Amino acid sequence: VTLQSPSGPAGRAFSFVGGTDGTWRITRSSAVIGAALPEASRVDVIESMVASPPPGALWVLRGVTSNERYVTRPERQLLVARQPPLGRPEAACAALIPIRKSASWWDLTQDERREILETRSEHIKIGLRYLPAVARRLHHSRDLGEPFDFITWFEYSPEHAMRFEELVGHLRASEEWKYVDREVDVRLVRGAL
Amino acid sequence: VTLQSPSGPAGRAFSFVGGTDGTWRITRSSAVIGAALPEASRVDVIESMVASPPPGALWVLRGVTSNERYVTRPERQLLVARQPPLGRPEAACAALIPIRKSASWWDLTQDERREILETRSEHIKIGLRYLPAVARRLHHSRDLGEPFDFITWFEYSPEHAMRFEELVGHLRASEEWKYVDREVDVRLVRGAL
Repeated sequence: VTLQSPSGPAGRAFSFVGGTDGTWRITRSSAVIGAALPEASRVDVIESMVASPPPGALWVLRGVTSNERYVTRPERQLLVARQPPLGRPEAACAALIPIRKSASWWDLTQDERREILETRSEHIKIGLRYLPAVARRLHHSRDLGEPFDFITWFEYSPEHAMRFEELVGHLRASEEWKYVDREVDVRLVRGAL
Repeated sequence: VTLQSPSGPAGRAFSFVGGTDGTWRITRSSAVIGAALPEASRVDVIESMVASPPPGALWVLRGVTSNERYVTRPERQLLVARQPPLGRPEAACAALIPIRKSASWWDLTQDERREILETRSEHIKIGLRYLPAVARRLHHSRDLGEPFDFITWFEYSPEHAMRFEELVGHLRASEEWKYVDREVDVRLVRGAL
């Protein structure tokens, strides 16, 4: 007998390794709420769940893409119609934003979380306004025993950098963000420079 | 740098090991939908995510308890008021029922899954009818890359055995169960006999 998928669900597991290697160079790493991440110069995005830190790693964050938890059918149709893929050549800027939500968030029921996330905070509606400028992939980490609950990876072109600041500004000002008890904001540029 | 919580989220990770050891003796193991589990005589319930199969293991199923995905506040209040704890001395019978849901289930949006699970299948309402006779703990496995999406562990006393059959019969007849594409039903009794 062997344990299944030690590297996580096939095609859905990702590891972000902060260290000295990787395609993405860190330009800024800030603790928005709570503790920062150790200082690293690059991030390597690995398409599996790494079981032990690679050589040179200063931190490792892991997550899995999963079914959506809040989006309705009409919202999904809008998202699918507008959202761009990751890896666009012109999208040379990225942001890696891991967040953790408080125990009081997780103690809310599904309907209460949806009410805060969308009815009162317009998380989905705000995100839609920045499509197709900003590409995004959400990773779930809480049930893996990771230090953050979610990791979002964003990609955008330098010309949309101010739009991206506007997007994160709107979300951080929302009622939903009162339940965020740790957030780090890592900004990156692609390439070897 | 070390990877966090290799044994899963603290207090929320569980492993069910089928083999020759453990408190619970298997009385019957049936494939309800899809492939069976290898034949074992006992199940050991371990309160962490085991990384490698213990000696004598024939199968290992792992999962984590998590926030509820569908329950509303009024439903939770009814559940909390009625649901008994695991480990009652009189609850000498257990059932370990791992299920996997189809890709078409996971492709539904949150509102569509809730509609099928409760509005049309009354999953929560049916469960409430069997409280406090049947104690239950739900474990999520899909995002761990496990072979099943959920593992439910039930405990009940021998006098409620027929009630328990009624409960699983209702659920299996529901519209929700059309989306179940693998299910195994393992029945157990506590003790060394």
